[in-house]
Amino acid sequence: MHKAFPDSINRLIKELSAMPGIGPRSAERITFHILQSPRENIIDLLNSIKEVKTSVRFCGVCSNLSDGGTCGICSDPARDRTRICVVEGPGGITAMERSGAYRGLYHVLLGALSPIDGVGPDELRIGGLLKRLSGEGVAEIILATDFTTGGETTAMYLKRALEPFNVTVTRLSRGVPVGGSLEYVDIATLQRAFEDRRKA
Amino acid sequence: MHKAFPDSINRLIKELSAMPGIGPRSAERITFHILQSPRENIIDLLNSIKEVKTSVRFCGVCSNLSDGGTCGICSDPARDRTRICVVEGPGGITAMERSGAYRGLYHVLLGALSPIDGVGPDELRIGGLLKRLSGEGVAEIILATDFTTGGETTAMYLKRALEPFNVTVTRLSRGVPVGGSLEYVDIATLQRAFEDRRKA
Repeated sequence: MHKAFPDSINRLIKELSAMPGIGPRSAERITFHILQSPRENIIDLLNSIKEVKTSVRFCGVCSNLSDGGTCGICSDPARDRTRICVVEGPGGITAMERSGAYRGLYHVLLGALSPIDGVGPDELRIGGLLKRLSGEGVAEIILATDFTTGGETTAMYLKRALEPFNVTVTRLSRGVPVGGSLEYVDIATLQRAFEDRRKA
Repeated sequence: MHKAFPDSINRLIKELSAMPGIGPRSAERITFHILQSPRENIIDLLNSIKEVKTSVRFCGVCSNLSDGGTCGICSDPARDRTRICVVEGPGGITAMERSGAYRGLYHVLLGALSPIDGVGPDELRIGGLLKRLSGEGVAEIILATDFTTGGETTAMYLKRALEPFNVTVTRLSRGVPVGGSLEYVDIATLQRAFEDRRKA
């Protein structure tokens, strides 16, 4: 914050800094950009934010983002309905779709287990996932939660919760990134890559 | 863009990606953050953007941002009025203020010379700078434009334009960053650091 600038500028910089991935310097550059942008562009941006806040809902089936009804993936007839990939948030869907490796359905938990933050199983969309297994003929559940403490804990919890169901439960593999050199891989990843080694 | 999400989400991601320093993945994370944030926080953000767009003006003296009249720095009686530091944009003021090295006045050019983009001397606030030299008893002009092609060209142009005036013109020094190791400094910086070497 600088007394060099009007309060309104400092306030906007502060509010933008609260966004994920925006540090104080980015926030400042974005503020100057907003100042210099044509009025119409900024009006469009404000309207887009308003529309997202008022019109976006969670899909009643998988909890992905939707504009009211069932989401674009659940309602796509070309999708393989025998597989459900479980992700923590909509960003997980983007990542999987970007990879092009998967054409099945999703289930969004809207978080990961974190006892410290008071996030238990009831805070996540786990009940809805179990309900989907009773009718639909699902053969495989792919656990694609993050490889963080919360994501791993959630994957372990789900593995157990899914045991009573007649469904194959898999987890994305851990290991050395493609193109990664052994020298530059962190110790934990290399340990996992060794544990999970497979027949060549 | 993914058919996986409603159009309103994709539109906001696209608009945010147009901001400086926000790539498509940041834009997506910010969009999800906006979705999850309490309504009041987002209303505050929208109001802050609106206020910046409607209330912020350029200072009539130095072209810094102001809320209508003379900016916070020009109207601060504690400032050394014998020095003017010339920067390309308000971000230059932030950087200089952060350094704590300077307590004089500023002049914001609102850009840098760039013939390719049609930015000549008339597009910058150079006339206003020259006008400030006639009365105020300014002893030194510090050229603090960027060390890019545009910034260097602007500094050279200003050096010449300021020759008729009875004022010392200086430029920020170039060289190896503090804490920088010679091995990791780029070639051009090292060449400059050698050229500009000073008595130890």
